[in-house]
Amino acid sequence: MNQKVVDVYNGMVVKFKELIREHELDHNDYHALVNWLDELGKAGEIPLFMDVFFETHALQEMYKNVEGTEPTILGPFYLENAKEIPNKGAMPMREDEKGDVFFFSGTVTDVEGNPLANTKVDIWQADANGEYSGFAEGIPADNLRAVLFTDENGKFEVQTIVPGDYSIPTGGPTGKFLNWIDSHPFRPAHLHLLFKPQNGDNLISQVFFEGNQYLDNDVANGVRGTLITKLEKHDGAEKGLAMDYYTAHLDFKLRLQDQPVYS
Amino acid sequence: MNQKVVDVYNGMVVKFKELIREHELDHNDYHALVNWLDELGKAGEIPLFMDVFFETHALQEMYKNVEGTEPTILGPFYLENAKEIPNKGAMPMREDEKGDVFFFSGTVTDVEGNPLANTKVDIWQADANGEYSGFAEGIPADNLRAVLFTDENGKFEVQTIVPGDYSIPTGGPTGKFLNWIDSHPFRPAHLHLLFKPQNGDNLISQVFFEGNQYLDNDVANGVRGTLITKLEKHDGAEKGLAMDYYTAHLDFKLRLQDQPVYS
Repeated sequence: MNQKVVDVYNGMVVKFKELIREHELDHNDYHALVNWLDELGKAGEIPLFMDVFFETHALQEMYKNVEGTEPTILGPFYLENAKEIPNKGAMPMREDEKGDVFFFSGTVTDVEGNPLANTKVDIWQADANGEYSGFAEGIPADNLRAVLFTDENGKFEVQTIVPGDYSIPTGGPTGKFLNWIDSHPFRPAHLHLLFKPQNGDNLISQVFFEGNQYLDNDVANGVRGTLITKLEKHDGAEKGLAMDYYTAHLDFKLRLQDQPVYS
Repeated sequence: MNQKVVDVYNGMVVKFKELIREHELDHNDYHALVNWLDELGKAGEIPLFMDVFFETHALQEMYKNVEGTEPTILGPFYLENAKEIPNKGAMPMREDEKGDVFFFSGTVTDVEGNPLANTKVDIWQADANGEYSGFAEGIPADNLRAVLFTDENGKFEVQTIVPGDYSIPTGGPTGKFLNWIDSHPFRPAHLHLLFKPQNGDNLISQVFFEGNQYLDNDVANGVRGTLITKLEKHDGAEKGLAMDYYTAHLDFKLRLQDQPVYS
């Protein structure tokens, strides 16, 4: 017996009945919903669908009035046990990895601004085509996924490539849903970051880039204004590189008790 | 664009957020829910789970203040195109079909009591072991499924066997849920009936039997008091049978506009 499951199930039944009354759903609508959910489930798209269409709303309800950096979607593409790289090192990537060279840096502090040294930072991202290793075919398993630790001042930097915009898959039941709601399938280019401080709880967040056309209409509604950074272009010669490169930076303020704030 | 899907999705988001606040669900709870739903979906158990744990509540909300016979769960085991048999004929069954011989009869009228001749009656049921053809292995495809038509007085009768109690599958994600809510997996023995009158809409219902131990605690909450019939035992010699047989009867009153009644 799990009382929480019982309570949540009973709560769902009440809300399901409200939904039926409010939208005057009939038995055919019920079966259309169940049949589509069945397709979604068999296609393995439930985590995708939930993370794109529900996770951000769940988080906004959980973390109202958040101090410090806002959490956003974990999404379905996080993988544990990414390769550890040195602070200021390069993400694992293919020799011919496409995309602009990009140095992303951050400072990790508590909400009072005290640096959080030795914080584990898990970073993952899509490649320049918007594809994630471990999910898209033909990409090495650990590509553009890494773990590193902040220095004594809470600082970290990673060399990577500017990620591409990401399109959720459109060929399955989630694609049908996109047609029904008349939405494009794109998320704006972003980095995923998961911070595990030495003492205290995790922060799951993302970083976006000014000027992206999908910031205001992210299919997953995961953008937070405070997480948008500026991609600065630099002359490659400054770092002895053959091509120009980009930098971006964000300060991350971790509430060390990362409990939901429902009120 | 499907405005109904947009509206229902937006309604679901609001209710999902209420659920999160009311039960103080956190991000780990969210992921536990999504992971279990993913298991449920991949196991193909979404129609089972929905029909057992949500369908009856949906119907009760849709058909409040129903005139005539109460609808109940269609369930996941209906199959179209069952074999047509004559009125008073026998359901397709194995030569050695286990179970007590059973003649079920009904009278089909409108809510004013006018007979509905030539109404299509789709009947399906579990066998004596509680297994459904087309889903359990080793049972002929059309076993204990039939279609027949009412006579000029709206009457029908079918020869079959008394169904066994049905246990929902317990080995998968739905079984995990049963453990969480501390429920047994049984539904009381029942016949499924789907009526398609010549003019007017369908009635989807079931018939139960007095004295069954699961009437008050049906795992799917599908029992309606008005659908419980009495199994009468008869001496087989009356019909020239070698063994005793059973009969049961119910009058079915169809609202010919079978639209939901939300208020």
